[in-house]
Amino acid sequence: MAPQVTVDSINPKVIECQYAVRGEIVILAQKLQQEIQAKPEAYPFQEILYCNIGNPQSLGQKSITFFREVLALCDHPAILAKSETQALFSADSIERARKILDQIPGRATGAYSHSQGIKGLRDTIAAAIEARDGFPADPNDIFMTDGASPAVHMMMQLLIRSEKDGILCPIPQYPLYSASIALHGGSLVPYYLDEATGWVLEVSELKKQLQEAKSNGITVRALVVINPGNPTGQVLAEENQKAIVEFCKEEGLVLLADEVYQENVYVPEKKFHSFKKVARSMGYGEEDIHLVSFQSVSKGYYGECGKRGGYMEVTGFGADVREHIYKLASVNLCSNITGQILASLVMSPPKVGDKSYESYIAERDGILSSLARRAKTLEDAFNKLEGITCNKAEGAMYLFPRINLPKKAIKAAEEVKTAPDLFYCRRLLNETGIVFVPGSGFGQVPGTWHFRCTILPQEEKIPAIVTRLTDFHKRFMDEFRD
Amino acid sequence: MAPQVTVDSINPKVIECQYAVRGEIVILAQKLQQEIQAKPEAYPFQEILYCNIGNPQSLGQKSITFFREVLALCDHPAILAKSETQALFSADSIERARKILDQIPGRATGAYSHSQGIKGLRDTIAAAIEARDGFPADPNDIFMTDGASPAVHMMMQLLIRSEKDGILCPIPQYPLYSASIALHGGSLVPYYLDEATGWVLEVSELKKQLQEAKSNGITVRALVVINPGNPTGQVLAEENQKAIVEFCKEEGLVLLADEVYQENVYVPEKKFHSFKKVARSMGYGEEDIHLVSFQSVSKGYYGECGKRGGYMEVTGFGADVREHIYKLASVNLCSNITGQILASLVMSPPKVGDKSYESYIAERDGILSSLARRAKTLEDAFNKLEGITCNKAEGAMYLFPRINLPKKAIKAAEEVKTAPDLFYCRRLLNETGIVFVPGSGFGQVPGTWHFRCTILPQEEKIPAIVTRLTDFHKRFMDEFRD
Repeated sequence: MAPQVTVDSINPKVIECQYAVRGEIVILAQKLQQEIQAKPEAYPFQEILYCNIGNPQSLGQKSITFFREVLALCDHPAILAKSETQALFSADSIERARKILDQIPGRATGAYSHSQGIKGLRDTIAAAIEARDGFPADPNDIFMTDGASPAVHMMMQLLIRSEKDGILCPIPQYPLYSASIALHGGSLVPYYLDEATGWVLEVSELKKQLQEAKSNGITVRALVVINPGNPTGQVLAEENQKAIVEFCKEEGLVLLADEVYQENVYVPEKKFHSFKKVARSMGYGEEDIHLVSFQSVSKGYYGECGKRGGYMEVTGFGADVREHIYKLASVNLCSNITGQILASLVMSPPKVGDKSYESYIAERDGILSSLARRAKTLEDAFNKLEGITCNKAEGAMYLFPRINLPKKAIKAAEEVKTAPDLFYCRRLLNETGIVFVPGSGFGQVPGTWHFRCTILPQEEKIPAIVTRLTDFHKRFMDEFRD
Repeated sequence: MAPQVTVDSINPKVIECQYAVRGEIVILAQKLQQEIQAKPEAYPFQEILYCNIGNPQSLGQKSITFFREVLALCDHPAILAKSETQALFSADSIERARKILDQIPGRATGAYSHSQGIKGLRDTIAAAIEARDGFPADPNDIFMTDGASPAVHMMMQLLIRSEKDGILCPIPQYPLYSASIALHGGSLVPYYLDEATGWVLEVSELKKQLQEAKSNGITVRALVVINPGNPTGQVLAEENQKAIVEFCKEEGLVLLADEVYQENVYVPEKKFHSFKKVARSMGYGEEDIHLVSFQSVSKGYYGECGKRGGYMEVTGFGADVREHIYKLASVNLCSNITGQILASLVMSPPKVGDKSYESYIAERDGILSSLARRAKTLEDAFNKLEGITCNKAEGAMYLFPRINLPKKAIKAAEEVKTAPDLFYCRRLLNETGIVFVPGSGFGQVPGTWHFRCTILPQEEKIPAIVTRLTDFHKRFMDEFRD
């Protein structure tokens, strides 16, 4: 008998799932890159400029020295006692590695850990959350994960029973959420961020969408909020966060707070507040609200995407539900220990007086201030282009400009059976090597068109990107202007 | 409104999922350990002896020096050029780290990689598979994963559409399979390994169970084979493997080959053969059979569980199905880079002539020969106990002895509403500190009772385990003997 597995016989939820961040445009970019390698004159550009994904180190961002020193020492503790090690590593990285090894049962960095992560590292993280928020954090609430994505999947798996269960998600959203909801067979209940006011999250919109979902027979179980926003880059105001907490409390919804960009705030007038801090400051405790906060080592100034470290802080669930969350974690045994160690380090970096403190601060601030400059430069560049408007990049790693495409361009896209934003991004890539992700991968108000652009290319490359983009855009508009 | 998420309103598939390896007995063991720490005289033993899980380094097994040297250098490449590094690291680990870094785009070990894993590392793995099997392997067939578990989940997610889709699984089985099938809403179709003949996998049994499943309206999509066996420790004979391949080919089933114990074979008369090698040697190619092989860095002589490295080799699927597998991988972006590097190292360890070769071989053979001795000692000890029979430990890391429990013991268990094997394991733990997993967590022929015991406690502890177990067993039988 011939093999039986065809596209017609696989899980339809898998077929339905979409993940634009690594979708069609990126596959095309990889193809062009191979062609250029084989034949450098194949295209009018020598390099693909990946602005599609929040992957800072792939674009030349350096890792933080202290973090890598500690990881290396934990990987090979045999060198800790050697004299040469003191010449190669900072004194505080040696001390920190020893401390971490002492926290690991048997100093066994090659053993499966507790399924929630090594207890001592969770203690460190809980203490850091307490210091950040001014409210208690319990290490038993921390579930360490291989990046934030598996944590999101775990919560979706827990909450979604059928397509009648809905999850309120921002539009535009990070497509992990739509992908995970599709894979788990639930319904994405959209709420629209208001582009005109800088991607503000209006509680009136939440209420409207919740009502509409209910009238369609959907039981809404949770609200996803991404703060700072991805792909939209806004930072929520504290008053707004309070209203969101109040809404979740009133409606009995789980608040799933994607807070992986908590270190990425670029404007002095805005500050990151965790949703847990906001809820606790309103007097709401464990018994009042289900609250899950996601954090990752992939973002911030550290950008350690490849290490796959992260955690979720889970509060407000009963002990019996918690047992099932623990069981889900235990089926995969534990997250990777290197990522666990790194998660503890990003939450507890060198402090004043530590040997590495000054060099660490210089590395950190160098990256963050450069990101802020790049965000502003790109934002200004977009706003100078005909038909493009771009909100302020207050935080995260992205801009999500809106493009008012001429009717002729939309028609040309339709003729090749392509969404107009994909049509624009494909042309841009083929003519300039710049990789943006079409807005349709994130969701947008029907009839509007956007793309997501990261602020991550190295600073010296930004002027060339702006020039190439500007020239391309002018040619494009000249070709299609109504 | 009060928070809405209760055990009655979470996903029933999550509730149904069981994972005994980290289940009740292990939670009890952790509790006892805490009590002993607080009050050393609380129990008649000073130490919990974890024989429940294949986690070698947690029990004192050392990591392989060469592997850890390379990982440390890849974590902190800044020291590669320093003179002190040559005093601390072997010359070939420095060379290997340089080679690996050259294979990583931008030498960025902190970047997300290709969703299947870094291409150069997949090249290394494919070459190692070719050398192992004598048949071609394609790096594009390799999907690197955080240990083998996520790979198994990915295939279950792909194949299972509803409870009408079945997966043939051995009984006893490693409970990852039953857990993953439950989470994805499919049906586990059991086939029983024949304990009387040393856990032989009879194709007649596969056919019988397949027919029975079909008559119950189940579409069987795949066959799981664990070789060497977990929890049963048998190594399949090549002729047997051929018959299994033939069965999958005839029935159009996906052969899911769990080959994570491929380095763990302890008897000279048995040899590991990959299912891909067997299928190719029968003349079956890509178009004849769907074949997936799982490998992990957690097992073998390396036992690097905490690093969460592994891969699956996926062959025999059409390009369109492969695209969906790739999409599933891409939703989680990539597996952790440290685990990816380690997976390439375990498949391509030092070779004759390399500086580390002799010390590497000494470390490897020291571990493997000790495991073989421990397996034999425990097997013999079990076979000396009244009412216990234990098959030969040919491979893997486990023994799965059968215990013929006296009727009185079964009655006593029923009185406390406990499965008899759990009753025995709980008593054993409370009286001796030894942690076994009850057979019911793996499945067993109804009315028979077993437990799983790893062969991993350090060799010097084995005599004490045998003594404690023997004394306990005698007391237990004296108390309950019919």
